[in-house]
Amino acid sequence: MRSMVRILVNGYGTIGKRVADAVSLQKDFELVGIAKTKPDFEAKIAIEKGYSIFCSIDKNIELFKKEGLDVGKLEKAFNEADVIIDCTPDGIAAQNKILYQKMKKKAIFEGGEEADIGVSFVAQCNYDKAINAPYIRVVSCNTTGLCRTLGALQMAGVEKVSATLIRRAADQNDIKTGPINALVPDVEIPSHHAEDVQTVLPINNIMTIAVKASTTLMHVHSLAVELKEKQAEDAIIDIFKNTTRIRLVKAKDGIKSTAHIMELARDIGRKRGDMYEICIWEDSIKIKGNTLYYLQAVHQESNVVPENIDAVRAMFELDSREESIKKTNKSLGII
Amino acid sequence: MRSMVRILVNGYGTIGKRVADAVSLQKDFELVGIAKTKPDFEAKIAIEKGYSIFCSIDKNIELFKKEGLDVGKLEKAFNEADVIIDCTPDGIAAQNKILYQKMKKKAIFEGGEEADIGVSFVAQCNYDKAINAPYIRVVSCNTTGLCRTLGALQMAGVEKVSATLIRRAADQNDIKTGPINALVPDVEIPSHHAEDVQTVLPINNIMTIAVKASTTLMHVHSLAVELKEKQAEDAIIDIFKNTTRIRLVKAKDGIKSTAHIMELARDIGRKRGDMYEICIWEDSIKIKGNTLYYLQAVHQESNVVPENIDAVRAMFELDSREESIKKTNKSLGII
Amino acid sequence: MRSMVRILVNGYGTIGKRVADAVSLQKDFELVGIAKTKPDFEAKIAIEKGYSIFCSIDKNIELFKKEGLDVGKLEKAFNEADVIIDCTPDGIAAQNKILYQKMKKKAIFEGGEEADIGVSFVAQCNYDKAINAPYIRVVSCNTTGLCRTLGALQMAGVEKVSATLIRRAADQNDIKTGPINALVPDVEIPSHHAEDVQTVLPINNIMTIAVKASTTLMHVHSLAVELKEKQAEDAIIDIFKNTTRIRLVKAKDGIKSTAHIMELARDIGRKRGDMYEICIWEDSIKIKGNTLYYLQAVHQESNVVPENIDAVRAMFELDSREESIKKTNKSLGII
Amino acid sequence: MRSMVRILVNGYGTIGKRVADAVSLQKDFELVGIAKTKPDFEAKIAIEKGYSIFCSIDKNIELFKKEGLDVGKLEKAFNEADVIIDCTPDGIAAQNKILYQKMKKKAIFEGGEEADIGVSFVAQCNYDKAINAPYIRVVSCNTTGLCRTLGALQMAGVEKVSATLIRRAADQNDIKTGPINALVPDVEIPSHHAEDVQTVLPINNIMTIAVKASTTLMHVHSLAVELKEKQAEDAIIDIFKNTTRIRLVKAKDGIKSTAHIMELARDIGRKRGDMYEICIWEDSIKIKGNTLYYLQAVHQESNVVPENIDAVRAMFELDSREESIKKTNKSLGII
Repeated sequence: MRSMVRILVNGYGTIGKRVADAVSLQKDFELVGIAKTKPDFEAKIAIEKGYSIFCSIDKNIELFKKEGLDVGKLEKAFNEADVIIDCTPDGIAAQNKILYQKMKKKAIFEGGEEADIGVSFVAQCNYDKAINAPYIRVVSCNTTGLCRTLGALQMAGVEKVSATLIRRAADQNDIKTGPINALVPDVEIPSHHAEDVQTVLPINNIMTIAVKASTTLMHVHSLAVELKEKQAEDAIIDIFKNTTRIRLVKAKDGIKSTAHIMELARDIGRKRGDMYEICIWEDSIKIKGNTLYYLQAVHQESNVVPENIDAVRAMFELDSREESIKKTNKSLGII
Repeated sequence: MRSMVRILVNGYGTIGKRVADAVSLQKDFELVGIAKTKPDFEAKIAIEKGYSIFCSIDKNIELFKKEGLDVGKLEKAFNEADVIIDCTPDGIAAQNKILYQKMKKKAIFEGGEEADIGVSFVAQCNYDKAINAPYIRVVSCNTTGLCRTLGALQMAGVEKVSATLIRRAADQNDIKTGPINALVPDVEIPSHHAEDVQTVLPINNIMTIAVKASTTLMHVHSLAVELKEKQAEDAIIDIFKNTTRIRLVKAKDGIKSTAHIMELARDIGRKRGDMYEICIWEDSIKIKGNTLYYLQAVHQESNVVPENIDAVRAMFELDSREESIKKTNKSLGII
Repeated sequence: MRSMVRILVNGYGTIGKRVADAVSLQKDFELVGIAKTKPDFEAKIAIEKGYSIFCSIDKNIELFKKEGLDVGKLEKAFNEADVIIDCTPDGIAAQNKILYQKMKKKAIFEGGEEADIGVSFVAQCNYDKAINAPYIRVVSCNTTGLCRTLGALQMAGVEKVSATLIRRAADQNDIKTGPINALVPDVEIPSHHAEDVQTVLPINNIMTIAVKASTTLMHVHSLAVELKEKQAEDAIIDIFKNTTRIRLVKAKDGIKSTAHIMELARDIGRKRGDMYEICIWEDSIKIKGNTLYYLQAVHQESNVVPENIDAVRAMFELDSREESIKKTNKSLGII
Repeated sequence: MRSMVRILVNGYGTIGKRVADAVSLQKDFELVGIAKTKPDFEAKIAIEKGYSIFCSIDKNIELFKKEGLDVGKLEKAFNEADVIIDCTPDGIAAQNKILYQKMKKKAIFEGGEEADIGVSFVAQCNYDKAINAPYIRVVSCNTTGLCRTLGALQMAGVEKVSATLIRRAADQNDIKTGPINALVPDVEIPSHHAEDVQTVLPINNIMTIAVKASTTLMHVHSLAVELKEKQAEDAIIDIFKNTTRIRLVKAKDGIKSTAHIMELARDIGRKRGDMYEICIWEDSIKIKGNTLYYLQAVHQESNVVPENIDAVRAMFELDSREESIKKTNKSLGII
């Protein structure tokens, strides 16, 4: 291994392009390049940013040339990289892993992949488990969102979790996916998220129910968490306040919806209007008996980006959990 | 009282027009007319249907005349009516009640009004409580939806209820109200629905959380109900199957969303595409420990319509609960 | 040919189920049955209505049986039918036509098919051209909408047409198709509609531009029509008033949007809330110089239904244009 | 006047906050502060940015204090400012102007105000007309969008313009305004935009028709422009390419919708994801006869921001049109 970790980002969609940008912000990382299949506007902007592009489909190299874009062959990039962050669409990564294994390359996968593809990972929850792991799976946006806040609550003792996930149906740049005007429940109960949380956190009793809504902005989770014993609401607020990558927002400040959280992210100058933190409505935090209720929002486009960075550091044992999170947060403007 | 109950429907919006149609379908009721403020297309269609219109704002009578619509004064209608079903917008009914009291007229109010305006009512849950009541409040669409299915579950013993309500933000013909692309949580926890259910059903432990979504079609409720003891899923299905005004639907039959339920209502020939029944996704019914989980959809435009009809029969002690529900169901095509 | 025309409806989606219902309302038609591929809720309702179902995929017959639905083989239905109305998804009909030709069966196709599949048809525009034709193509919802109102204007002399079509992106029961929050222009100018109108009407100079919007209800067309000479707005209103299958609506009556037109259709008791007529906003009709401007809305789910019925009558030379339209209109409640 | 122009931004909504940021980027401007009425999250972020806040409602000063925000009285700010950029909601500015006149302060107003409030202004179209003007009105987002591209086309001779404006119904952070699922035509033809364009450009023959759609992202304009004589499409592309604040985008590059333009803006690192330029789909540019057709998109939240900056420079005769536009563009990253 070189003094800097050399990283190839394979796949340059919603997550891939954010991960590439985040990689290029780290002082201890070097971006070998990105792998793309088509010479579209995103390829052109990547070139403008100085990223090397490698074409993941050989016969498409000509298409890039026609657009005046100079691209390399993917194999070359594989050789130069210490680790591949695989942000390809769901289902492709499993095949890619075989290739990575053959080339003896470490790799990081995203949450759309099966749990057994690597160590399931949320930095603040189980960083140490991923140390030296050859394959890590950064869990999905929803699972990461649940793990961050449930992980924080573990210090208060989590007995039982019940969550309804109101999912955004499509990302902001996805014009193909609906519904335009409907609510679409996932009738499989529990939804896969319950089991997925358990790949990261030791919570025995967890139920998740998912419903898709006609929105592109963020997921909203409605949570009921039975605690070991009754807690004061202020104590819970303190726990969340002192947990990294969680942000408390207030309806009474005018942050009344996911649209307002996105506005907040734009107003504070976040790149691409991203909100890496899980946002909990402070006014919604409510204790009744031993049960804590709260509402949180998850920016599906960006919240796993810092996890991908920390996963690399864990994988190469570069830093402790605290150090890695601190570096990543600083680079992304997370306070 | 005459042999037929004479009814005035005051307010002719989403609920009022459906109630007027339902009233005119009952053999034991007579529709004195409807009260409206503006000579719009809905007024014209009402006239075509043969409904008498009474103008609730005196100075607007001229506007109706200009459009060639013959309307009467509201006072006259009050005199002729045995009962007023008040479907005016939220907040107006409270003032109207003073008038009704002065005129010694019985009245039925809708769920947007404060609970103390009359006996809170869901026919299949507490019909007898409303017998001879001078003032009845048909609870809101969401509360009615919760009461119907929770009421059915009481035979299995309901210990504790936790519900997340994903609310449609606007009705189908409301073009002013958003959000167009956001999720809007109600940070007040519990939402007002919990207490509202308790005005109808003796459930001590109930928590409701509400989030608004960008859709016009139906509400979706995600429910967790702790039962006295463990039940088989089939037993629960049987309970729901044998309960009136509940309809089981299946995602595996292609009813995968609220849009499909609306399509179902249109396909079976329901007037205005209405779905009076609370629709439970049978595939979502899940028992874990003593807790039952299920997802249901509520057609906010129509589900309280049958309740308004039954409320009249209870109020005038015309029929038993079973008889009234049977008559109402038959008239509306509810099987 | 029997005394009644025997009709098979192949395909039972948005259009197919409406056509089947319309067929069964005609005194001179007999519905042999419908062809479906899956035993979903729509199949169950079809059976309840008494429609015979024929399974268009042999190996799926078992699936129907499992659901307790008795279905026949499609070939049998072909034999019994005089004509097939093919409402299968885009692109399948072309293959089906080869089969129909082999079996010497007449057939009617929908607007998604290529223009050369049969005589392009809008009843009030070119009924006579389709008399005795073996294959007719009922043009698409948008093209039908343009032809009805432009056809009416021909008596005033149409020199040049320029239309912007704001298209609904998905039907009401389509939960897969987006966009949820975007406008999607068709950068191909003219859009295919211009040429498609010319398969029906002799308009030499026509330009159409299409943009998709995040709505499921109706298309809206913004039209500029250069007339041979200046006309009074009232004269234009009269032309539209006297043209069948066109309905004038007014914003000042409260019909301010496509949502209100759908409400109107529901209020007047239309089955499935359908609006067969092209709705022109009367308040939008504006003459400037020789050019007429107006805005119209097209209910994509239903406006071509009457055309399918009239196409059968033309094909078998059962009635004159006027007679057929009159019968169809009466059966569907079009005044 | 001081060596730097001292500016107060009155109103801190969608436009106001962007103008304040843009003002603070100009080397020749000084931001005196912003005027706000409520101590919401936007106020808190403004303070973090170092902006002075002045409370426009005296009795609300206490509310700011409660939130720990130090605010000044508005009168003080007025005194310190050379010019007020009034970004208050529609209709308030007219009253404010009386105040500004009394205080002998220059002011810039936005497009929601009546045309006679000041010189209507689009920098690249009529900068010189605004030189030394005491009151300037930056025209609305739609009008600015039309003026930029029609203004560019004037060198090819504009004979007649016909435009259909498909308007976004609400801004991204507006959760109150609908419609959620409808198209809402403006039946007033021409819409007010035609006349508004004429306050800036000498185009005699212009027709505009407006329809609102359920989207928050951008407006789309469908344009037909009759030119003095036939032009080649490439010549038109060249004109647009050489015009500032116009950006050509291509569907074939993957920019197929307004959502993709917003993605582009985020990808190139624009603050708040803003797109100041009018985006024309190059693939949509089409000549037929003497008429040019094209489709363009307008980012209503940001496209008038550069105009506000240039308006100040014109008002104080600080720079020539070219110089001012160059400075403004550079500061905002417009190439």
